[in-house]
Amino acid sequence: MKIALCQVNTIVGNIEYNKSRIIDGYKKAVNDAADLVIFPELSLIGYPPLDLVEKKEFRQASLKALAEIADQSGEVGLLFGTITEDDDNIGTDIHNSAVLCYNGKVQFIQHKSLIPNYDVFDEMRYFDPAKSIYVHEFKGEKLGISVCEDIWNDADYWYKQRYSYDPVKDLIEKHASVIVNISASPYSFGKRESRKNMLSVLCKTEKIPLAYVCDVGAQTELIFDGASMCFDNEGNLVKLGKAFEEDYFIFDTKEKCQPVKSSERSFEEETLSALIFGLKEYCSKQKFRQVLVGLSGGIDSALVTYIAVKAIGPENVNVMLMPSIYSSEGSIKDSEKLIKNLGILSSNVSIQPVVKEVLKMLSSVVTEKHKRIVEENIQARIRGVYLMAVSNQFGYLLLTTGNKSEMAVGYCTLYGDMAGGLGVIADVYKTDVYRIVNYINKEKEIIPKEIVEKEPSAELSLGQKDQDILPPYELLDKILKMYLEENKEYDEITKIIGDGEVVNKVLKMVDNNEYKRRQAAPALRVSTKAFGYGRRYPVVQGWRK
Amino acid sequence: MKIALCQVNTIVGNIEYNKSRIIDGYKKAVNDAADLVIFPELSLIGYPPLDLVEKKEFRQASLKALAEIADQSGEVGLLFGTITEDDDNIGTDIHNSAVLCYNGKVQFIQHKSLIPNYDVFDEMRYFDPAKSIYVHEFKGEKLGISVCEDIWNDADYWYKQRYSYDPVKDLIEKHASVIVNISASPYSFGKRESRKNMLSVLCKTEKIPLAYVCDVGAQTELIFDGASMCFDNEGNLVKLGKAFEEDYFIFDTKEKCQPVKSSERSFEEETLSALIFGLKEYCSKQKFRQVLVGLSGGIDSALVTYIAVKAIGPENVNVMLMPSIYSSEGSIKDSEKLIKNLGILSSNVSIQPVVKEVLKMLSSVVTEKHKRIVEENIQARIRGVYLMAVSNQFGYLLLTTGNKSEMAVGYCTLYGDMAGGLGVIADVYKTDVYRIVNYINKEKEIIPKEIVEKEPSAELSLGQKDQDILPPYELLDKILKMYLEENKEYDEITKIIGDGEVVNKVLKMVDNNEYKRRQAAPALRVSTKAFGYGRRYPVVQGWRK
Repeated sequence: MKIALCQVNTIVGNIEYNKSRIIDGYKKAVNDAADLVIFPELSLIGYPPLDLVEKKEFRQASLKALAEIADQSGEVGLLFGTITEDDDNIGTDIHNSAVLCYNGKVQFIQHKSLIPNYDVFDEMRYFDPAKSIYVHEFKGEKLGISVCEDIWNDADYWYKQRYSYDPVKDLIEKHASVIVNISASPYSFGKRESRKNMLSVLCKTEKIPLAYVCDVGAQTELIFDGASMCFDNEGNLVKLGKAFEEDYFIFDTKEKCQPVKSSERSFEEETLSALIFGLKEYCSKQKFRQVLVGLSGGIDSALVTYIAVKAIGPENVNVMLMPSIYSSEGSIKDSEKLIKNLGILSSNVSIQPVVKEVLKMLSSVVTEKHKRIVEENIQARIRGVYLMAVSNQFGYLLLTTGNKSEMAVGYCTLYGDMAGGLGVIADVYKTDVYRIVNYINKEKEIIPKEIVEKEPSAELSLGQKDQDILPPYELLDKILKMYLEENKEYDEITKIIGDGEVVNKVLKMVDNNEYKRRQAAPALRVSTKAFGYGRRYPVVQGWRK
Repeated sequence: MKIALCQVNTIVGNIEYNKSRIIDGYKKAVNDAADLVIFPELSLIGYPPLDLVEKKEFRQASLKALAEIADQSGEVGLLFGTITEDDDNIGTDIHNSAVLCYNGKVQFIQHKSLIPNYDVFDEMRYFDPAKSIYVHEFKGEKLGISVCEDIWNDADYWYKQRYSYDPVKDLIEKHASVIVNISASPYSFGKRESRKNMLSVLCKTEKIPLAYVCDVGAQTELIFDGASMCFDNEGNLVKLGKAFEEDYFIFDTKEKCQPVKSSERSFEEETLSALIFGLKEYCSKQKFRQVLVGLSGGIDSALVTYIAVKAIGPENVNVMLMPSIYSSEGSIKDSEKLIKNLGILSSNVSIQPVVKEVLKMLSSVVTEKHKRIVEENIQARIRGVYLMAVSNQFGYLLLTTGNKSEMAVGYCTLYGDMAGGLGVIADVYKTDVYRIVNYINKEKEIIPKEIVEKEPSAELSLGQKDQDILPPYELLDKILKMYLEENKEYDEITKIIGDGEVVNKVLKMVDNNEYKRRQAAPALRVSTKAFGYGRRYPVVQGWRK
């Protein structure tokens, strides 16, 4: 069976656009004499649709589009993901379904059986699970059709199962001759290898070929990396779609193919690609032509600026230098070097006169006691005022430059450096920022070495260094990774780190700054556990207080 | 059977504190010769615990506390909510359970069967459902114990069931002689009547008495109103706990009691009580002694200030007047009258010199074209800078004053008037703000009538009125309620409103300002659908673009 995989980039909620992408892909594959053309999970409505599916008119529009697509199908099978409804009047009555059309009709619908509801997944809010799963005979094959999560519960592969039922096993017991999985799987580093290993084991164990089609694109903070995969019945990866771009290819289940190597590259390369792609997607889908970055002379804003240049071109990147009396001479010089290296537009406006005026006006209320923290925050917030004024003036998207380590411990100013529409590196630890910058500079110094080598400082008061308040970043990030990504807690982390005091201090900082992160811009997600959507941590709580 | 209901106010995550509340309540009820003492859902760990339950050390701490509580139990039954674990290695292995202790041991555990996962509920992330439900014989009664949602799926009462299984029906078929439900049910106006009506029908239909114990308190944005209820076997409400405060009372299932009337008061009175309680709780649990409000002379900030005075006393409320050249003389005078009426502390600092300085510094980048919007936002943001400086200086909690109508259409400035730690009236429509203020002024003019009567204006430019940009608030709120709370869409709303153009404009404004609300402070929830936690709407989407 010749299966065409259409790895398309859809837009959440834009049913008309997505429909046209499906019809175009189908026509192309018909031309290529495919037997079956497959599209990702919920490709007609975009993934994740979130509360949009709770709107009756939205569901009706999607059902109308589904009928129009079915109408255009001919002898070649067309399989794609969309929502369908049932009428048992229990639960949401909505399903996340794979719909197979041919000869002008919907011929078969397989609902998703396993409904993920962890981290960034909230699907139990919206979708009822399938009551049963069937194979569908088509052109001499018994198609075993599943949707995304359905294939992630293999008892042979996982140490611990999330669900008691394994729909793919069920399909195999029902004599499926080929497994098709339509998917929307958010990117994080290492995820592609996981997918490959798991699917390979399945195909090898069950001696069955598999076509796995993924969507590509970014939806607000979630990045979908594509990289659709096909396996032969020995578990060899024989087809692999491009990462971070649309793709289209044909997998012939009967043809003997050469195994291909998985495409995952180094952490630095992958993460950089994901961030560039995520930002590019956000700009194009939100119709921002240009972006704005506040350039401090530090490594974070330098990396964000570089990512912006790669995403939308230097001619669309505007940076603003906003020195104060605490800005070192180096910061300005280094920023200017970066601006020259990248060929971007810049402006330079001192915040000093405004900060002075604010302090003068507030002299009756601001006392010596907390003056330092108040003054520091005023500086950061006046920069926020400048940047937002320019953003409002020209319609630029303001990018925030905070990294994950800072966001974790609250080493950032609400409405100051946290101001902006998208957190570009807010899911990248500080030590990883260095790794990525060194990777960028591998062959040629693009980000000036002075920026890379200087001791990190917010430059909000005289001689201030990050390490005055924070543990060394190597140590901080080690603690943060265990706490945030591995869900380890005080005792476990202290056993590894040794110094309970520093662990306690860091964990408290993370917890106590939840209120700040609640007001943070959405952040491109590149780790297994990002701040934002997939984290649900109480602001008011007494666990460690 | 004498059942003591302990309507306690717990703190999410503070296991030690919650444990002491449970033990204290138990001792009191033992003294009162109760047979059974009951506490709300998850009262040992607080509700909602969110991602805290994903921490192994947190679960271990809760299990240790559970054992310690059980150890202190005597002949009198002690029933409370906490998490327990199973070892089937499928799913999360965590349950939201009702635990019954007596004679020094855990004697019976009933896991929650129905796991809510809509709006502000995310329980499928954390909890596996019960596999079965049993009655437990205790002191001559067959206790039918259920947890919160378990009782909300009565096929006789609801037009549409959320779940295919009804655990309470199961308990009755298993010959339960009394139903106990331990609950944590977030407040919204009308919810208490819903609870009463549903439970009354159940008791009347099944001819069974019921004890329903609710928690009270607020956890960040969620308000739990208490008002625990007991019904006799004819469906009469015979006991009713206090709303918005802790309570304790005994229900004797064998004693004939006089029916009591449900306590729900007018919308204005209830909503005001809920907001005062929510703010008081946030301050006390987050350890803020004092709050800060930017007083504009408008009705919203006046109401927020009044609420703050009622919540924590006038001596703890600080307001700041920050006039600009666009502030009317009336605004200052009216604010001063309010300050006098409420007896609060105030300061007055003009933003004009700072705004002027910002505009001077940005003169090269801000052009005539978008000057108005840029200037307006600069004013709002300089006010944000002032307020946050004072907040940083004195550790005051800054309250945001935006109402739900403004938040819906984005008629507010990010990092300006949106700056603050808690949105006090962000779930109250503008027309309801008027209703509540008129209720406050019913007997005596507390909020000056000049503030109530003036035409709404942000006073950010000359002669500016809200109605220049927005439809009249009566119309706007009507559209918003249908769109946000009833999930109606364009066609349906237009059929009711008539004017499709204004409906389209409003719906687009709501959708396009999702990005702003993502960065808003948590808002006290008093409606069935608030912005924030219970709303999951995509920022990037093309449904109506």
